[in-house]
Amino acid sequence: MNMNAKPRTYDFASLGALLAPRSVAIIGASADPARIGGRPIAAMLSGGYKGRILPVNPGRDEVQGLACYASVADLPETPEAGIIAVAAKQTPEIVRALGEKGCRSVTLFSAGFAETGAVGEKIQAEVLAIAHGYGMRVLGPNTLGVYNVAVGYYGTFSSSLEMAFPLPGNVGIASQSGAYGAHLSAVARVRGLGASVLVTTGNEADVTVADAIGWMAGSDTVDVICAYQEGFRDADRMIAALDTARAAGKPVFMLKSGRSPLGASAAASHTASLAGDDAVAEAVLAEHGVIRVRDTEQMLDFAYAARQRIYPAHNSLGVITISGGAGIVASDEAELAGLPMPAMPAEAQARLKQLLPYGAPANPLDCTAQALNDMSLFEEFTRAALRDGGYRSILCFMTYVAGSATLAPKLRETLHEIRTEFPDRLLALCIIADDTVTRAYEEAGFLVFSDPSRAVRAIAAMGRVGEMMARKPKALPELPNVRLPAVSPDEYAAKALLAKAGIAAAAERIAHSAEEAVAAAAELGFPVVMKIVSPDIVHKSDIGGVRLNLVDTDCVRAAYQEILDTVGRTAPAARIAGILVARQLSGGVECLIGISRDPVFGPVAVFGLGGIFVEILKDVAISPCPFDEATAREMILSIKAAAILTGARGRAPADLDALASMLSRLSAFAAAAGPRLRAIDLNPVLALPDGAYALDAVIECDDEVLP
Amino acid sequence: MNMNAKPRTYDFASLGALLAPRSVAIIGASADPARIGGRPIAAMLSGGYKGRILPVNPGRDEVQGLACYASVADLPETPEAGIIAVAAKQTPEIVRALGEKGCRSVTLFSAGFAETGAVGEKIQAEVLAIAHGYGMRVLGPNTLGVYNVAVGYYGTFSSSLEMAFPLPGNVGIASQSGAYGAHLSAVARVRGLGASVLVTTGNEADVTVADAIGWMAGSDTVDVICAYQEGFRDADRMIAALDTARAAGKPVFMLKSGRSPLGASAAASHTASLAGDDAVAEAVLAEHGVIRVRDTEQMLDFAYAARQRIYPAHNSLGVITISGGAGIVASDEAELAGLPMPAMPAEAQARLKQLLPYGAPANPLDCTAQALNDMSLFEEFTRAALRDGGYRSILCFMTYVAGSATLAPKLRETLHEIRTEFPDRLLALCIIADDTVTRAYEEAGFLVFSDPSRAVRAIAAMGRVGEMMARKPKALPELPNVRLPAVSPDEYAAKALLAKAGIAAAAERIAHSAEEAVAAAAELGFPVVMKIVSPDIVHKSDIGGVRLNLVDTDCVRAAYQEILDTVGRTAPAARIAGILVARQLSGGVECLIGISRDPVFGPVAVFGLGGIFVEILKDVAISPCPFDEATAREMILSIKAAAILTGARGRAPADLDALASMLSRLSAFAAAAGPRLRAIDLNPVLALPDGAYALDAVIECDDEVLP
Repeated sequence: MNMNAKPRTYDFASLGALLAPRSVAIIGASADPARIGGRPIAAMLSGGYKGRILPVNPGRDEVQGLACYASVADLPETPEAGIIAVAAKQTPEIVRALGEKGCRSVTLFSAGFAETGAVGEKIQAEVLAIAHGYGMRVLGPNTLGVYNVAVGYYGTFSSSLEMAFPLPGNVGIASQSGAYGAHLSAVARVRGLGASVLVTTGNEADVTVADAIGWMAGSDTVDVICAYQEGFRDADRMIAALDTARAAGKPVFMLKSGRSPLGASAAASHTASLAGDDAVAEAVLAEHGVIRVRDTEQMLDFAYAARQRIYPAHNSLGVITISGGAGIVASDEAELAGLPMPAMPAEAQARLKQLLPYGAPANPLDCTAQALNDMSLFEEFTRAALRDGGYRSILCFMTYVAGSATLAPKLRETLHEIRTEFPDRLLALCIIADDTVTRAYEEAGFLVFSDPSRAVRAIAAMGRVGEMMARKPKALPELPNVRLPAVSPDEYAAKALLAKAGIAAAAERIAHSAEEAVAAAAELGFPVVMKIVSPDIVHKSDIGGVRLNLVDTDCVRAAYQEILDTVGRTAPAARIAGILVARQLSGGVECLIGISRDPVFGPVAVFGLGGIFVEILKDVAISPCPFDEATAREMILSIKAAAILTGARGRAPADLDALASMLSRLSAFAAAAGPRLRAIDLNPVLALPDGAYALDAVIECDDEVLP
Repeated sequence: MNMNAKPRTYDFASLGALLAPRSVAIIGASADPARIGGRPIAAMLSGGYKGRILPVNPGRDEVQGLACYASVADLPETPEAGIIAVAAKQTPEIVRALGEKGCRSVTLFSAGFAETGAVGEKIQAEVLAIAHGYGMRVLGPNTLGVYNVAVGYYGTFSSSLEMAFPLPGNVGIASQSGAYGAHLSAVARVRGLGASVLVTTGNEADVTVADAIGWMAGSDTVDVICAYQEGFRDADRMIAALDTARAAGKPVFMLKSGRSPLGASAAASHTASLAGDDAVAEAVLAEHGVIRVRDTEQMLDFAYAARQRIYPAHNSLGVITISGGAGIVASDEAELAGLPMPAMPAEAQARLKQLLPYGAPANPLDCTAQALNDMSLFEEFTRAALRDGGYRSILCFMTYVAGSATLAPKLRETLHEIRTEFPDRLLALCIIADDTVTRAYEEAGFLVFSDPSRAVRAIAAMGRVGEMMARKPKALPELPNVRLPAVSPDEYAAKALLAKAGIAAAAERIAHSAEEAVAAAAELGFPVVMKIVSPDIVHKSDIGGVRLNLVDTDCVRAAYQEILDTVGRTAPAARIAGILVARQLSGGVECLIGISRDPVFGPVAVFGLGGIFVEILKDVAISPCPFDEATAREMILSIKAAAILTGARGRAPADLDALASMLSRLSAFAAAAGPRLRAIDLNPVLALPDGAYALDAVIECDDEVLP
């Protein structure tokens, strides 16, 4: 993510040629509907594809009842899309023929490309170059394909269509994995969820999950986006797609797998090991509005809950229940999910208590099994929750009772009235009923869950979607001019470089003689610390290059010589740039502020308290660079030990303004420094009641390569 | 839990009269099968109850085709069970009549008892006293009742039976909440899970969830116990029930709700606020083998997975998949669940690589979609995982492919052979298929899930069951003789009391004059600390009662007078017992060891590091008292910051033996001290490289009440 460059724009709309083509040529078309080259034809024939299917196979005149052509050149018209189901080595020639014909996209079912090694990689690159030469988008290779129910387009060889076709609906699925994407689609079908678009991206030579998200963001039929993603390679494209989806008011529920650290991080700095690949992706995704899900079930639960497109930004939950137990279960889950359940206003409670003396009208509102005898009680409690309680979301626990033939019709009618009266609320039921009864409640405008805990998690997620959509884009700090030195600078030079970007160190001077050191100390004020400065020494303490608590002139003079003598022995080859004399600051809280470079997402900032807190407790906040002071402050306050900075246990509160400013400025510095910057460690940063100062600074950068 | 008393024994078998009676009288019997007094009769008639149903209703001769009697006295035989469905105020008389008749149990459907206030509470107590006078067990009042499919007994008015009867099977459900218990039962039914026993305990005047667990532990039909519990009132009974279930090899999956702290804890000590009601229950449940579940779905997933009664104590997972994506999803979840997925042996990998060059045979073992063309690949990979990989559990991800009409029969056959060959392994499939196909795979001996993440969590839980069953009961430490003083002791007296139980403080003396203080300091060695000793002062520092770093005789002499002067001003009314002179220890790690008294579970020990670690990070371990040193060591090593004690960041490791010994001894002290002990705070305890010493000690106890 290069913040100096203008944001690139992406032509997500061009995926229309892949996902909603007016005509499609199938190269390698088969008469057998069970073969890879036969399946999409069979599926489109029974799925009611609204465009023209153009089979290509030199050995046949007819395929599955359609006229078949010997070659792409022989086609009677220009196909908007091409599906290729032949061996990898034949593909370059076919892609070229499609390009010549004016085709706009190719879907490469074929395997045997980059996933198999160097030879395949070469063919993949060749195919891509040819396609791009003609301005065609490429899906795959090694993809299971796509479908789009709205136009009856089934450019896929997934055998899941043999079981059942997907339902029409407003959910789209984008998946890197073909089989897992098809699995998601099949589970959605079983659950009665209309996942009407599926894109599986395979090797992602061109089209990625990000492109699919971007296209769905602009699609008329998709309102809710589910994505399965293993890793990221193009951060800019993913961010552009996510921002497009957010701007379109469409939530993205993402299962990002590979959460466990792969240990493949090549970055050597301390900061890098703290960040971790998945944590970086997590921070970026959260910033760009993704709701990350734990598993498939949660993804589809959330997608289901989003069907009403009600996303309460200031969410609160009222639970109406016929079982005290269910109310407690729901409350527990709401607390875990961070979903507030404020109590009903006192007057409303008093009124309900009169209606039902043994009920519990706080929240949960328990109208007890009495509601089964007198449905008006349930209605009264629910209306009171919506009107007097003002809850943005409501969960009614009715269990199998709602499935009863005697109660269901009346209950459905009541619920339908409530739905009409409160159109902006998120309304959910927890019931056990057969499919027909369930559908009827859904048609009355309610979400239906059988598990109260799952219902609460989904309701909480809709609130997070609302918050995400309401969030203002973060203000970016102005980037400083940064000119990195040709090689990694020493501490003194690093601090000087950072000072230009407004990042404060303790007052300090560099001395080249004992007399200069004494003069510097006198000027700075005692006590001082003294540290060896050398481009060859990072860990100064380890080799005896640091002296603390130097209280007077004599100490300083002696320390100067001692440091030189010691370092002369312990690091005889090191080039010595001088000795740093700094005012010794004390008190305050030691923090660590660092930058590491993620291979995909670029510079990432890490904040934590020093020592044990980062090394043992891993209590850190991370964020991609750059970010403003408000974000920096949120990061600082998000660590578990934040209370140590805000005045816990009788301490003076640290200067959070100064700390946040430093963190934000460092993020801007890192963003401006360009890709040669590998890492920065400010460790410790001393956060005082007034001011924050970097007591040490390490900047690691790649050596400059002269042109 | 009074550890001085002999463990009580409980007559769980007596619940047989409630759950499997040979005859049942229904008092308040109704001819209307939709009324409370009619439902159990209707249910037993259609459910095939194997005993005799004896309706009682003075207004009728016949009820639902059965002879009906005017009163209990008129019954032609002794009913083993009585179900009472009349108003609360009539119940004492009826219970007495049942007792006179020789009945062994009563189920009180009626509400209007303790849940409604003082009047109802009185009737409840009266009913209980009458029943106990006749040796009858009482279920309820305010209970939805019980059922037991094996004998066709439906002593419940749950309307869920109108939808469907529960399936026979080896799962039992015990629930404090009636409606939630019935909900669990209904969800189990929908999932095809045989939950053949349900007990809902209502007000728990007599029979509790613990009794139900205890009965199921001894039942022939229940192998797997699901429990819903809101709070505990009788720790001994629950522990006895759990230990009985564990001894019988039956897992208990418990949803304990009310996780959020209720803020009702009356205990004033620092330690008490750290422990928290739910955390104490959590510790006790874990110790006694309960697998605590997050929600209903998880409870039933685990109960389902337990159907094979295979609980691999040293669990490991091999995943065979046709989708790389699903393999990663499963691996992520296994890591979160702490379920190891070791790689296949190198030779086996090489062999599988030869079979399928583009497969990935490590673990997950990806046999790719190629397995769909050649089923022998799947078979070969799965056998290799079981034989060469030796995994205790296997998950095969086949998604909708396993539901295909062409593949399913052959696949089922293959799986059945594998099941027969490896009878002790936990075998699970992740597939999408209709009910018939699913049942067929289950009959072939496999667990069937549609979500790979849920499958992994359930497999991990079976391993935890195995570990719990294999765990040796913890050795209890010998309890010391503890005689608490009449009122809370001062620091000096507290340390002396603890010293007798082998709990070491820093060497110290009490001085009553400056000269005694000087002599004590000379004997102990400098530096010393001095602290005011008063039964009226707990927070000594706050009132100027502590001096540190006293390096010589003059300092000690001066400090003696200064402390007296200061305390004379700041706490003029305090009785002064003297001034404590203690050797000042330094270095090491400051810890906190505390005891609080849980109203249900008795004394509970808390361990954490001092200051920030307990107060801000809440990084503590807790355990009910008493426990042995091995348990104490596990607690110490379980905190997040444990590395600080074991030598992180170049520190000398703390003396864990001494620390664990102190923690275990304090737990024994607390168990021996009896119910007058409210709390103990040893804060700080200094853990040195050799030894651990309590630097302060507060013992709070209730004043002794003279007889």
